[in-house]
Amino acid sequence: MGNSFGKLFRISTFGESHGKGLGVIIDGCPAGLKIDEEYIRNEMQRRKPGQSKITTQRKEEDEFQILSGVFEGKSTGTPIGMVIMNTDQKSKDYGHIADKFRPSHADYTYQEKYGIRDYRGGGRSSARETSARVAAGAIAKLLLQHFGISIQAYVSQVGDLKLTKPYQELDLEQTEKNIIRCPDPEMAEEMISFIDEIRKSRDTVGGVVSCVIKGVPPGLGEPVFDRLNAELGKAMLSINAVKGFEYGSGFEGVKMRGSEHNDAFYTEGDKVRTRTNHSGGIQGGISNGEDIYFKVAFKPVATIMIDQESVNEAGESVTVSGKGRHDPCVVPRAVPIVEAMGALVLADYLLISRANKL
Amino acid sequence: MGNSFGKLFRISTFGESHGKGLGVIIDGCPAGLKIDEEYIRNEMQRRKPGQSKITTQRKEEDEFQILSGVFEGKSTGTPIGMVIMNTDQKSKDYGHIADKFRPSHADYTYQEKYGIRDYRGGGRSSARETSARVAAGAIAKLLLQHFGISIQAYVSQVGDLKLTKPYQELDLEQTEKNIIRCPDPEMAEEMISFIDEIRKSRDTVGGVVSCVIKGVPPGLGEPVFDRLNAELGKAMLSINAVKGFEYGSGFEGVKMRGSEHNDAFYTEGDKVRTRTNHSGGIQGGISNGEDIYFKVAFKPVATIMIDQESVNEAGESVTVSGKGRHDPCVVPRAVPIVEAMGALVLADYLLISRANKL
Amino acid sequence: MGNSFGKLFRISTFGESHGKGLGVIIDGCPAGLKIDEEYIRNEMQRRKPGQSKITTQRKEEDEFQILSGVFEGKSTGTPIGMVIMNTDQKSKDYGHIADKFRPSHADYTYQEKYGIRDYRGGGRSSARETSARVAAGAIAKLLLQHFGISIQAYVSQVGDLKLTKPYQELDLEQTEKNIIRCPDPEMAEEMISFIDEIRKSRDTVGGVVSCVIKGVPPGLGEPVFDRLNAELGKAMLSINAVKGFEYGSGFEGVKMRGSEHNDAFYTEGDKVRTRTNHSGGIQGGISNGEDIYFKVAFKPVATIMIDQESVNEAGESVTVSGKGRHDPCVVPRAVPIVEAMGALVLADYLLISRANKL
Amino acid sequence: MGNSFGKLFRISTFGESHGKGLGVIIDGCPAGLKIDEEYIRNEMQRRKPGQSKITTQRKEEDEFQILSGVFEGKSTGTPIGMVIMNTDQKSKDYGHIADKFRPSHADYTYQEKYGIRDYRGGGRSSARETSARVAAGAIAKLLLQHFGISIQAYVSQVGDLKLTKPYQELDLEQTEKNIIRCPDPEMAEEMISFIDEIRKSRDTVGGVVSCVIKGVPPGLGEPVFDRLNAELGKAMLSINAVKGFEYGSGFEGVKMRGSEHNDAFYTEGDKVRTRTNHSGGIQGGISNGEDIYFKVAFKPVATIMIDQESVNEAGESVTVSGKGRHDPCVVPRAVPIVEAMGALVLADYLLISRANKL
Repeated sequence: MGNSFGKLFRISTFGESHGKGLGVIIDGCPAGLKIDEEYIRNEMQRRKPGQSKITTQRKEEDEFQILSGVFEGKSTGTPIGMVIMNTDQKSKDYGHIADKFRPSHADYTYQEKYGIRDYRGGGRSSARETSARVAAGAIAKLLLQHFGISIQAYVSQVGDLKLTKPYQELDLEQTEKNIIRCPDPEMAEEMISFIDEIRKSRDTVGGVVSCVIKGVPPGLGEPVFDRLNAELGKAMLSINAVKGFEYGSGFEGVKMRGSEHNDAFYTEGDKVRTRTNHSGGIQGGISNGEDIYFKVAFKPVATIMIDQESVNEAGESVTVSGKGRHDPCVVPRAVPIVEAMGALVLADYLLISRANKL
Repeated sequence: MGNSFGKLFRISTFGESHGKGLGVIIDGCPAGLKIDEEYIRNEMQRRKPGQSKITTQRKEEDEFQILSGVFEGKSTGTPIGMVIMNTDQKSKDYGHIADKFRPSHADYTYQEKYGIRDYRGGGRSSARETSARVAAGAIAKLLLQHFGISIQAYVSQVGDLKLTKPYQELDLEQTEKNIIRCPDPEMAEEMISFIDEIRKSRDTVGGVVSCVIKGVPPGLGEPVFDRLNAELGKAMLSINAVKGFEYGSGFEGVKMRGSEHNDAFYTEGDKVRTRTNHSGGIQGGISNGEDIYFKVAFKPVATIMIDQESVNEAGESVTVSGKGRHDPCVVPRAVPIVEAMGALVLADYLLISRANKL
Repeated sequence: MGNSFGKLFRISTFGESHGKGLGVIIDGCPAGLKIDEEYIRNEMQRRKPGQSKITTQRKEEDEFQILSGVFEGKSTGTPIGMVIMNTDQKSKDYGHIADKFRPSHADYTYQEKYGIRDYRGGGRSSARETSARVAAGAIAKLLLQHFGISIQAYVSQVGDLKLTKPYQELDLEQTEKNIIRCPDPEMAEEMISFIDEIRKSRDTVGGVVSCVIKGVPPGLGEPVFDRLNAELGKAMLSINAVKGFEYGSGFEGVKMRGSEHNDAFYTEGDKVRTRTNHSGGIQGGISNGEDIYFKVAFKPVATIMIDQESVNEAGESVTVSGKGRHDPCVVPRAVPIVEAMGALVLADYLLISRANKL
Repeated sequence: MGNSFGKLFRISTFGESHGKGLGVIIDGCPAGLKIDEEYIRNEMQRRKPGQSKITTQRKEEDEFQILSGVFEGKSTGTPIGMVIMNTDQKSKDYGHIADKFRPSHADYTYQEKYGIRDYRGGGRSSARETSARVAAGAIAKLLLQHFGISIQAYVSQVGDLKLTKPYQELDLEQTEKNIIRCPDPEMAEEMISFIDEIRKSRDTVGGVVSCVIKGVPPGLGEPVFDRLNAELGKAMLSINAVKGFEYGSGFEGVKMRGSEHNDAFYTEGDKVRTRTNHSGGIQGGISNGEDIYFKVAFKPVATIMIDQESVNEAGESVTVSGKGRHDPCVVPRAVPIVEAMGALVLADYLLISRANKL
């Protein structure tokens, strides 16, 4: 279970790091949407390994193929099926950990849950799985663009290096201009060289990805359990290595008084606006028309090049020594994944919002 | 939509703050479970308003009635229907804000989404809705107890007052011994008097609720989208006033190196354990048998007794002056709600884990 | 599980024949719909026992109460919670079959599935459960009326007494004018006296309910698994005692040639129509704008006043002798239930059809 | 929507008759199941076009590929992704009906629903879609075999040619020994030559597929909306060209008295059995351990080689003349599809039945 996401704009994914291929079905994409394959390809490139010196050097071409649901360049309303074949699998790389549980990986929990696992790497728990999310997310983004909604993520922290400015004071256009995807050029440089050091020390480090969604009309979301913020939180927490999610004032808001935190309403022309936006664009689980923004915390990548204590399937103590080609820090490649998951949530609620009306 | 939660242990709730009553249907509770009404009543008491000087003085009896699904003290496997009638509604209290949008409440977003709302207060967005969650959660807790799983939440922060000790160094037995529900007696005193000041200043403040789940067997949870941590995050973010969620090392983990953060495996008898638990008991979205722990951030209560700028439905600037009886800080009453939602998630995954096996 | 129905217009029900009460939550009813309680009450009356000499003489008042989701006579978009308390339970009537499995009832299967059951009658499997469906269905019908869609069921067969005329040649206005709910007055008389004989012989008999839905716009329904006809079939087959469902030409269509069965298209003004309607208004699982019509087969009521061979929970042979007050034939009271379930399906697809569009 | 089926053993399909390919994701197959590709291939062969003189002569190789979820011949518990590429599409065959609505096809309804359609044939509404169901159903059958449950369908009627014997008096082993898949050799011959005449007359005819499921333990199924019979009905009614479903006594049962229709209980060793099985193995929506049997009615294939009246997208009257290669009668190829859908329903309920227990 758990391989589908969304209600009306619903995706189901499959595939492991070392199987023949991965894929996704998008069920519920409205008919008539222009499907720009170049755009999808570009999104895939942003997630792809080997894109810079601070990401894994593993080569994966991430070539996708659309098998259904698109006719003469437009969605037909029927499910869009996409496949991404695995090419460079290098299974031999993994032989040495076949029966060992890599610390803070999913080896042990998968073994406990399923009693069997593809020992040639992370299998289904590998970040490779996110390629299907990005492919589907690209189509969700095309749908959002059609409705004037944009979503933009960026790296706001790596280890202790933290952007202090709020997103309003940043030039988000700069984000894609550097390999770390931080909109502040100076900070970007610092982060890059820091990650480079980490990489040389054969270790890894964590980071934070921030995200801003603009152009969301008021009234998107549901009350009670399926609050827009709850669904966004679930979407982000479903990404590999994520340990935390906060939106609007987040954990900092805890320290504020109600009198500071409340967002006063005023009118701008015929539009109701708020003077501040500690609510992060969501009140009572429903969008209020202001920007939606949130932060996602990523732990340090579990695969390190340093020997570690562990046990094997027989329960014997063993040493796990890192091999293969891995990311010293996951955040640069996580940026498009955060956008993809955010776009999937918004696309879903956008469709829902149009149904339950007289 | 959005008024149901869970897959196999599934609840659906209804009810507003000023309607005739609220209720919940629990669909999927296994047959034969002893339903201890006293236990449920006690859980309701923990959430109930007017329980101490630092909560709202509003009187709500929260008397529930089980209408179905229980026969001779045991669950029958058919849906358990419960209702909680509204008694002390004091609708007149709300007349003065009938057409005004209270800042950082859901008045405006509900109006935008539905074009109509019960102006006699929060309606469906009122924390009153959580009484149904606690009633259902109590039954989920009884199911977890049957399987040896316990869940305990406590207040770890109010404003700037923060418990620095990890839960392992606290005596969680102390939690219910004070009205703020903080297991550290000294800190509890500080928090209580701080909230009392806040109350006198007619303002409100936020806080953090921490939660620990013990006795979870390895293998609970699903990969990819329905990770155990993702579902826990959604559950917590669906609670009124929540702005953030983190589990295990959370946002702090971002600063660590992989070599520090990874949880080394070792064996204790025939059990596989981890030396540290930065993973928070969950790896790859699946429980590993260690304690699950997480934190939930609550913003300051939006209803304050101080005049605020706002607009009305006509878009005219108005002043909203707080009336009625409200909480200066939500966390003491949020503790049982956090436990209830956590228990619902665990109960659901517990049942799922028993299905998908040969 | 299995106590909810629908996707966007979704109901969840609870309650047993001998518990304190039954109820339903309607989640997804659009805001602003006028909720006419008189109309709902009237629908409940049509299902109610004791309404005529050919139905059970059991007295159940079927008084419902709306607890939420309606404000000043209109739906608010939040869940509509309704309860129906049980009054005349006469539990003692059932003592004699406490540990016996009544033939062709659900006693044995419930015992096998749950290991426990409310032996005071059918419990959850009692037709009493359908009162909640009718209450929810009445609101679905109000929604359909808002969109110009009408649904009308009638009795077309009792035992061998069968209406040969197609619905187009019947005056459906006559349906509610007789206690059997057959639109042909002569046939109605025959059916009534036949059922009366059956009743006197302490036996029961089956029947068929036919249903016509008019005013459905083209384009409602989904391809593949959730075809409109598949969902209608599931809805009908979920009603107690139903053994079969067919739509359009149904089982008779099997004997036809494609050249006879195909419905030729032509245009009437700017509307595309079909010359015949063997398709029953549905092609490829999607409505084509013609009338939707179908038939539902009900088996004879299982409770008879004649002694029957059976076994008890200990596996000993026993004799089950019918007591209590039961229906000699279920179809007159099934008419509003068939309409209710049909209305729920249409309401759901109506909302879905408005979501998945650009 | 509507391209997924099942709850715990859940499939999602995609693909059109003239796209690049089709596929299915099976989410929820328990880990450790032996996946016999030869068995799957054989099931696909049974559905495949061109298998005999009485089916379409269209050549489709129906070669499938398993891309994920299987490791070293066994299921891993992660989603099983399968693709079937389209080879012989012959798009040119369809140019002549590009803008015409073929009578009793889904051309018009898809156009109305989506505003766009793949005019190169049936697209998503083509029976080609069922290849993915059969592939997934084969794996469901392997799961059922593991639990000792068998499912067998056969042709019981073609036009007026009807098998009068109940399944108990037939040698179902004979079913696959003839090209019509009727277990009665004499009747099989008659049916084959009748279909051959129909084919020569360039027309088509309908038929009935019967199905028997043996070895189902008591207690499978859910009460109320998700009754086992309701889900089976939905599954069958979701198959192209199906117009009716009945189980057990079905529409004939309507004519019986309760005293004839009730299935008396008795004990056989420690097993509770019924003397008759008018219930069709299901009581109150839950299996009682007796054989489950049902019938599915298929209308005559809509594509005939005879000219027909219709309209085009512009609303002008046109003549549709059949071209291409189609089936004169769908039932021989429908047999494996009915089994596949039945197996999917049983597999799902089998898993559910193991979850909701203490």
